[in-house]
Amino acid sequence: TPQQPSSYSLAVVPGDGIGPEVTSAALAVLDAAEAAFGFTTTREVFSAGAHHYVATGELFAEIEERLRGHDAILFGSMGDPSVQPGILERGFILQMRQRFAQAANVRPVRLYPGVRTPIADLTPERCDLVIVRENTEGAYVGRGSTVHEGTPHAVAVQESINTKAGVARVVEYAFRLAAARRRKLTLCHKTNILVEAGKLWAGTVAEIGERYPEVEVDYVHVDAMCFHLPTAPERFDVVVTDNLFGDIITDLGATVQGGMGVAASANLNLDGSAPSMFEAIHGSAPDIAGTGAANPAGAVLSLSLLLGHLGEAEAAAAVEAAAVHVIGGMQSLTGPGMGGTTDEVGQAMAQAVTALAE
Amino acid sequence: TPQQPSSYSLAVVPGDGIGPEVTSAALAVLDAAEAAFGFTTTREVFSAGAHHYVATGELFAEIEERLRGHDAILFGSMGDPSVQPGILERGFILQMRQRFAQAANVRPVRLYPGVRTPIADLTPERCDLVIVRENTEGAYVGRGSTVHEGTPHAVAVQESINTKAGVARVVEYAFRLAAARRRKLTLCHKTNILVEAGKLWAGTVAEIGERYPEVEVDYVHVDAMCFHLPTAPERFDVVVTDNLFGDIITDLGATVQGGMGVAASANLNLDGSAPSMFEAIHGSAPDIAGTGAANPAGAVLSLSLLLGHLGEAEAAAAVEAAAVHVIGGMQSLTGPGMGGTTDEVGQAMAQAVTALAE
Ligand SMILES: CC(C)[C@H](C(=O)O)[C@@H](O)C(=O)O
Ligand SMILES: CC(C)[C@H](C(=O)O)[C@@H](O)C(=O)O
Repeated sequence: TPQQPSSYSLAVVPGDGIGPEVTSAALAVLDAAEAAFGFTTTREVFSAGAHHYVATGELFAEIEERLRGHDAILFGSMGDPSVQPGILERGFILQMRQRFAQAANVRPVRLYPGVRTPIADLTPERCDLVIVRENTEGAYVGRGSTVHEGTPHAVAVQESINTKAGVARVVEYAFRLAAARRRKLTLCHKTNILVEAGKLWAGTVAEIGERYPEVEVDYVHVDAMCFHLPTAPERFDVVVTDNLFGDIITDLGATVQGGMGVAASANLNLDGSAPSMFEAIHGSAPDIAGTGAANPAGAVLSLSLLLGHLGEAEAAAAVEAAAVHVIGGMQSLTGPGMGGTTDEVGQAMAQAVTALAE
Repeated sequence: TPQQPSSYSLAVVPGDGIGPEVTSAALAVLDAAEAAFGFTTTREVFSAGAHHYVATGELFAEIEERLRGHDAILFGSMGDPSVQPGILERGFILQMRQRFAQAANVRPVRLYPGVRTPIADLTPERCDLVIVRENTEGAYVGRGSTVHEGTPHAVAVQESINTKAGVARVVEYAFRLAAARRRKLTLCHKTNILVEAGKLWAGTVAEIGERYPEVEVDYVHVDAMCFHLPTAPERFDVVVTDNLFGDIITDLGATVQGGMGVAASANLNLDGSAPSMFEAIHGSAPDIAGTGAANPAGAVLSLSLLLGHLGEAEAAAAVEAAAVHVIGGMQSLTGPGMGGTTDEVGQAMAQAVTALAE
């Protein structure tokens, strides 16, 4: 009897703005990957995001349990001027990262061939690193308080909470990743100023590093990273950092690799207790929504990370190669310079997957 | 009777590594400026920094009162592998900023003509902004604690403390500066996540902005700044931000303007209670100390800020123009490509001051 094809259940959260467009392009690529590599998916699409919130008042809590049942989550993007900044971030995105223990936010920074970067003279060979950002704690715990609010004596205290368990799990993951790559791990922090958090981070890296003697360990202050990452990305293989610094330097990484349009991310649950989530790192860009100007590459590359996470390594590699092939032929990373609409670019990537598998 | 020439008393803190070299170059430029513009300075040189600390155990506290008596402080740079990271930062630099209420750390980001930037296609006209960083509080208060240290249950809490008074004084300064420039102020923060601190910052900008109706107010998240600052610096005139974000984005600014070699800073006391401090933003670079490879431009441009602060506007302008003229002729911003040693470059800048005044 022939083996049953693997089947995975996906939660799809298209969200707002260009989110649904790039997600639908990514799903077309997924269709092609399924046909080519002999696995199947079931997909449950969730209404969520700014418009859904305005209409229903619902955020993450209302769909948490239904999402939890899936093998992985493909996420578009969220946000709209109709919703006050912070509501969706804290009520949905951070909730998901924290409630689903998505401990590692993984962001590859690769300059793909043919992509124009704002960094002068940078070449693809020099830019291939992965930033691993702690994704559940630090300054993102949202703890703080204000006394004497609205008076000249107001004091606002904002707390960054760092636990050994939270730091250790992401550092362990980063070492494992580095061991499987070029065997170099760089801690990015500001240990000379943020002494308590710094001791925990540096101590944990030193401790876990003892079990990875083959991995070289380096340290770079977050401010110095602003110099090294754009001018010498070849210095880095895997960079591990805290939640807030990770937020900042991954956007810098996206800039170095040519812009948000091609940047992908995985929000990894590392203990199997809940699904991982995959999303392009660009926002919902309501200004270009509906125009077909959005580049689905970030979403498609995130799909590749999702497939790798599910164990479909061949499909993951083909989807990545297809995306890289198509963006390599683009004049620019958004709008007409892409050589087609969001949909058409998605179709081209899907065809490239099919062609690669033949 | 002829008017007495103005005289100022300067504290000079050369520090470690290349600090003394670039400071001595800056003092040669100051000599030329005094001769050309008819003012005088007395200079008290202070031993301080890594070597002084190793020899004596002394940091800031021991010289605080003597420093306090001066009109301004010209600072080189501090740091050496012989001293553990954090000691000089917290024991000297942050002490000075906090004890002398140097509320605003002001860092011009200008691409000077002839300087090579790592940013492709950037032109000097597009890059002329000033970052104003809060310099005395936020995450730099050094408050935090760790419980269960060294156990699997360790928790490190790091606090960012933001006071209305501290935020208001630097925001007021930033508005004043913007009003005197291109009349645009951008707040850089992460208000959607750091809610308590964010409310205080955004509220203070809105409140003080009412008194500056001519200044346009904008807001950019610190992560998005990593995209906008390198690719569209023309979007910014004055950027105001907190201490930690300021640490990060000013280094990004230095990268955009061609590297640490040309970046200057003022640590401004805004209420006259203590002297302001002026320093290049590069570090002590012990690896190139003594080789003459260090570029004194950052120190000389910091001297220009110092002179402007003392009210010697003409001299300040001439020193800046001289530095800009000399660096415009350099092949590279450090080493032989400068066309001379640190000393020789300083001499060339001094001569340019003299020539400009004639
Ligand atoms: C949307 C926002 C909450 C989020 C963050 O700050 O983490 C975003 O900037 C990101 O990096 O994924
Ligand atoms: C040396 C260090 C304390 C300092 C800081 O973090 O502020 C430096 O990076 C700077 O930006 O002046």
